[in-house]
Formats: sequence, structure tokens, C-alpha cells
Amino acid sequence: MRAAVLYGPRDIRVEERAQPAIIQPTDAIITLSATCICGTDLWPYRGVSPVTEPTPMGHEYCGIVEEVGRAVTSIKPGQFVIGSFFASDNSCPHCRAGYHTSCRQKEPVRGAQAPVLRIPLADGTLVATAHVPPREMIPSLLALSDVMGTGWFAADAATVRRGGTVAVVGDGAVGLLAVLSARQMGAERIIVMSRHAPRQKLAREFGATDIVSERGDEGVARILELTKGVGVDAVLECVGTQESMMQAIHATRPGGSLSYVGVPHGVALNADELFFKHVRLHGGPAPVRRFLPELIDLVLYEKINPGKVFDLTLPLDQAAEGYRAMDERRAIKTLLSVN
Amino acid sequence: MRAAVLYGPRDIRVEERAQPAIIQPTDAIITLSATCICGTDLWPYRGVSPVTEPTPMGHEYCGIVEEVGRAVTSIKPGQFVIGSFFASDNSCPHCRAGYHTSCRQKEPVRGAQAPVLRIPLADGTLVATAHVPPREMIPSLLALSDVMGTGWFAADAATVRRGGTVAVVGDGAVGLLAVLSARQMGAERIIVMSRHAPRQKLAREFGATDIVSERGDEGVARILELTKGVGVDAVLECVGTQESMMQAIHATRPGGSLSYVGVPHGVALNADELFFKHVRLHGGPAPVRRFLPELIDLVLYEKINPGKVFDLTLPLDQAAEGYRAMDERRAIKTLLSVN
Repeated sequence: MRAAVLYGPRDIRVEERAQPAIIQPTDAIITLSATCICGTDLWPYRGVSPVTEPTPMGHEYCGIVEEVGRAVTSIKPGQFVIGSFFASDNSCPHCRAGYHTSCRQKEPVRGAQAPVLRIPLADGTLVATAHVPPREMIPSLLALSDVMGTGWFAADAATVRRGGTVAVVGDGAVGLLAVLSARQMGAERIIVMSRHAPRQKLAREFGATDIVSERGDEGVARILELTKGVGVDAVLECVGTQESMMQAIHATRPGGSLSYVGVPHGVALNADELFFKHVRLHGGPAPVRRFLPELIDLVLYEKINPGKVFDLTLPLDQAAEGYRAMDERRAIKTLLSVN
Repeated sequence: MRAAVLYGPRDIRVEERAQPAIIQPTDAIITLSATCICGTDLWPYRGVSPVTEPTPMGHEYCGIVEEVGRAVTSIKPGQFVIGSFFASDNSCPHCRAGYHTSCRQKEPVRGAQAPVLRIPLADGTLVATAHVPPREMIPSLLALSDVMGTGWFAADAATVRRGGTVAVVGDGAVGLLAVLSARQMGAERIIVMSRHAPRQKLAREFGATDIVSERGDEGVARILELTKGVGVDAVLECVGTQESMMQAIHATRPGGSLSYVGVPHGVALNADELFFKHVRLHGGPAPVRRFLPELIDLVLYEKINPGKVFDLTLPLDQAAEGYRAMDERRAIKTLLSVN
């Protein structure tokens, strides 16, 4: 099969690789309905996270089960399934507490930018739909695998409440879907920090009520102005840099909540600042598996349409252009057609 | 009047000072029923926080209202009152959200180690009891002014739940009252880190189920052993040093909560560590005013007896010995009799 492999900074190649097969009795093999490129993929692509060997890329997926290992009991060939970017057993104490990305048996899913994928811990990781969904729902269902689940966790971790105020730092796909999530949870005012017109437009469509295009201290000043100097109930930090984290801290009201869902890159937190401002901080790799059943229903009942973040669709063979378009911010998120 | 004044490291003097008077129309003057020395007072006493001029000490108080300014409407002379160590207006957006120590008009209370005290923003700061309470309840009511309110906030901020597991880092007065608070909130298992026999005894009396006397990594290993490797639902960090914070982070289960209520002294937080462990972090200067009505009831109905942390009572004139005893850990907390 053909698969996207990262060889080094900005060197993505689509090349022939062996098709995956069952290794563990708890594995499943699925044929992907579609796959995509994640903002997280840009860290190694840009050389920020080092790449020491050719690395099969991709961790977002949905598709049809082809084969399962002999220990798999709840997932069957022919089912349409979605899973998280981390495999989990869904039964250890951390999974039972809802933190599947801290599962005792957790294992990253790798190599999803390909037509066929091996999923470890299939029973714990995959959620099957009752029927195979119509083709037009694939982008929104694919989004649940990571980007939508992560945006949802951002809103959940910042305890977004009905009638509350929300600020989203970051207008990438996760930030935009954090807007959608906050709206779905009933937030009244949703401020998004964005300076890109197409992203501002999609943010408004997803439920943003205010756009702040200023950055840094000016952006914070604008948010404080919009909230009569009080600050925001729930700030959702969806970037992962020191600058975005500081913006988020300064925009939070005393006693307010700040969630962070992008892997922090060199972020130092000042305990004094968080302390004297009473910031409630919670984040981490989104435990997407916890939210999948609810989010699948929301998509199937057409309550949410997270697939709108895909503004570029390319065949897998053009993955390199998909990465370039996201790197240069010409595309919000690239969907790759594989089958 | 006589009052305790800090001149420099370990130099506490009880000397003659002018009796406070109404300055602002929102002030009240109270005659203290008792006062005490706080663990926080030990930071400047030990020279960790610099003292640049003779500083009147003390911020914990309860007593009888003598006089109120002309703008005070809800507090009357003759009432028995308790207030927080921070004056607050109890009406700004931050107070209404329950974060009185972030009040827009907040002002620290100073000079409470004296027989008479001026309280700013009396209407917002003070809570009066229906009757003047009996003398034997004074220590427990005095404790509400800071140490008990802070222990309670530690448990509240870590979202201690009925049936949950709790670990308390620190066996000072705040840590011990955090144990009492966690028990009151229904925690099933309460582990306290302590290596001092009298404090262990009081911790047990307050509801601790397990004592861990090991420190650092060994202490963490012991806590993990006690929780079958899972970690603790709610960790209450009641010290404020880098070491205690690291112990707290490492003892928290993934997705668990960590509160910190001691002013951090040189604490650096690693965003990556908090992120990948899904730690929920919340703390700050305890908004004691939020909890006063409930805590006063719990004391008056004899449900809690936080005054037990006072294991040394001295007349105000012997304040220097009171500080020494706490500094040398001969006393948990010193009550000073003033009237």
C-alpha cells in the first residue's frame, strides 16, 4: 500500500509500505474511509520535534473493520468504527475515571495516513456505529478521532457553563472546534483570537460572538475591555506556546478556568501568577475516547458539523502539498482521500 | 496599647503603639477576643520574605465591634464578628464569584497581634454571629479567620468528594485542618504526610486514615503503594515549596486534582508534567470570606473543633516565645491572649 512517511523537516514522501497485519490478539485491521493531517504533525514536519528515522505519519482515522484478533470480542468485521489517536483498554482505573490518554496500556496510533491501519486494543479503543454512515458524514466523523474530541475536551476541561463567557486562544482547527464545543455547551459569549479572515468566518459559523485580532498584551486588553474588566470565565488555550499560555492566563478572570490541549512546547508556568489569580488549570492529551459515543450521536443527528474544518481535500499521493498548505496557513486542515 | 512588631529576622518585639481608629467611613474597630501566630508569619520572621521596616504583625482575629464608620450598615457595635485576613467588599464581580481574596477593593488586614484592630470594608469583610459565643469556642472561631478557612479551601479547590481518596502534603496547622475539612466533606481515605508524633496524633483525631512519614520520592512511592499504584483523587499541598509541590504532583492520579494554598516560594511548574498527567490545578490565597457563614455554623453546632490546632497559649507580651516555639516546631500554632 501507499503511505505518508516523514523523512526530515518538510520532507514528506508517499511511498510503498507493507500493509499492516494483526500482531496482537487484541488488534483490529481497518480500511480507512478517509484520513487527515493534524496540527500536531506540523511540529515534526517543521523540525521542532526531531525526526530520527523515517516515520509513518497520521493518527486520525475512521473506517470499516476488515479483521480482528482472536481476543477481540465487541468489534466485528464490517462495522464502521472511530477511535482515538491513543489506543486504550477502556477498563483500567484511569480509563474508568475518563482519562483514556493516561490508560495503563496506552499506545499511540501511528501510520494512519494510509489506506489500511492496525489498531491496538480494539475493544477498548474503537466505537462502532449502528450502521455504516452515509459518505457525506465521513469528514465530520473523521474529525471526532482527534481534532473535534480535543476541542471538546478544551471546553470540558475549562468547565464551560451555560450562559458563561469563553475565550479561545488559537484559530487552528482545534481552536475552531473548541468554539463549536463551547457553543454546544451553552456558552453565551465566545471570544476567539484570530487574525485570518477565513478562520474568523468559520469561527462565527461555529458560534463565536466576538473576534479579537490583536495579539499579546493588546489582545488581552481587548478581551478585558469586552468583559468590563472582569476577565473570562473559561479560557481555552489551543496553541501550546509560551505566548499563547500567557495570553490565556491574563485573560482568565480570578477563579476562572483555563484549559490547555496543545502539547506545550517550552512552556514555563509561574506558580505565583496562577496562585494569586486563582486560575484553575486543567489540560492534557484529550481523552477523546470518553467523548466518542456522545460526539458520534451529535454528528449522526446533525447537531454538529465539525467536518467543516477540512477546507482542502487531496488524494493521499499529494500529502506533501497537504502539509505545505497547512504549514503556510493556506489550509486550516487537509483531508486525505485514501480509498 | 501593646502590639507585636517584627523588626527583622527573628526579632519580634511587643511594644507600645497607638490604638487604631476609624480612618475610612467603611471601617470598623474591634476589640479582639484572641489572636494568634500564622505559619505565614514565619516567612518574614525567618527572613525568607524581607522586612524593610518595623512591621506590625498578625492577620487572624475575632472579637467585639467597638465602633463603626458612618458608611457601615450591617455591622453594629456589640456584635461578635469574624473576618478574613483580606478585607473585601463582598459585592464586586470577583467576590460574587466567590474569590474574595481577588476582590477589586481587597486590602490585607495587618496588626492583629494586638488588643484592638481596625478592619477596612467592615460590611463586606466581617460576619457577625447571632449571639456572643461562649469563651470556650473562641479558639475554634478564631481559627476560621485564616487557618481553618485555608484548610477548607484546600479541600474545596481539590474538589474532595464523598468516598474519594485524599492526600495532604504538610502537617502544619493548615495541613491538619485540611484533613479535618476533607473528612467533613466525606473523603473515605485521607493520607497525611507527617513525621512528627504530636501532629500525627492530631491528624488521626481530625480524620486521617493513613500516615506517611517518608518524604520526597519515597513518600510518593508509599502513597502510590497505598492506592494500588493509581494515585490519589485529591492532593492538598499545604506547604508552598518546590519539594512539596513535586510530591503533590507525583502523588496525584491522572485526571486528579491538586490544590495549593500556601504562598509558593520559588516554585516552578513544568507545564509538560502537568499536561501529560492531566493534573487539575487550583489554589491561591484562600477566599475565606466565602466559607465563613458555613464554617461558623459548623463550629457553633460543635461539628468541627479547629481550635485544637492551638497547642500553645501565651499572653501577647510573650509573642516572641510564641514565634520561637512555632519556628522550632515545638508548637503547631500559638494562640495569644490579648484581652
